[in-house]
Amino acid sequence: MGCLFCDIAGGRHDAHLIYEDDSHIAILDKYPIQPGHSLVIPREHHEKIIDVPEEGVSSLFTKVPMLARAILKATGADGFNIGQNNGKAANQIIPHVHVHIIPRYEKLSNPWKRRMIATDEELRELAGRIRKFVSSA
Amino acid sequence: MGCLFCDIAGGRHDAHLIYEDDSHIAILDKYPIQPGHSLVIPREHHEKIIDVPEEGVSSLFTKVPMLARAILKATGADGFNIGQNNGKAANQIIPHVHVHIIPRYEKLSNPWKRRMIATDEELRELAGRIRKFVSSA
Repeated sequence: MGCLFCDIAGGRHDAHLIYEDDSHIAILDKYPIQPGHSLVIPREHHEKIIDVPEEGVSSLFTKVPMLARAILKATGADGFNIGQNNGKAANQIIPHVHVHIIPRYEKLSNPWKRRMIATDEELRELAGRIRKFVSSA
Repeated sequence: MGCLFCDIAGGRHDAHLIYEDDSHIAILDKYPIQPGHSLVIPREHHEKIIDVPEEGVSSLFTKVPMLARAILKATGADGFNIGQNNGKAANQIIPHVHVHIIPRYEKLSNPWKRRMIATDEELRELAGRIRKFVSSA
């Protein structure tokens, strides 16, 4: 009955990290919709965004534009979607709050047919590239 | 060369308001993906979330769970998606930052085929119902 994202945040499960601070981690989605698809995850376990205290909502979402800028620089994407799903009816798969950042490319259409296959090596290389653009401020 | 959301925020264009404060408005989407589909819009004009100062990102996104709770209560939805699109490549249609809150219903599947037809009367009634659940705090 463990939680995958608690395990990743606690270092008990591998992931391709692009950012971390005392309250959050950000990783590459292992099954990306588009190259560079990332997840921003609060370390504190809450199932839905409506369960998170206001300060937590604020600090979580203020990380998102900072990380999106780094992802855009590293991938050369033309735009991006932010997504956050709450409840099974809304396609939430892991019941621990997370924000999707999905880079979008003019050349790649119809991205919503999950999912691409990314190799571990591709993810490792891309995570390293994004980290170079992330300011940890 | 006007901006539709600046016009709505300034009272120069009609919309079905569910919330407003000094810095934001929230309205029903006129072409909902699902009943109760709403938009949270900062009054200040910025095109993308990466253009918004950090305080603006924080205050915008902290409104979202408060409004989502009201929408869930008013509609009886089982879950909800938060979405925010940046750039044409990411399907951003109105180039003024806005956050989608999309209620989801277990009984209604495949909602991503935009869009439903909602009558003005249906939207007016629903907006009134949501406003009753919104705390303006």
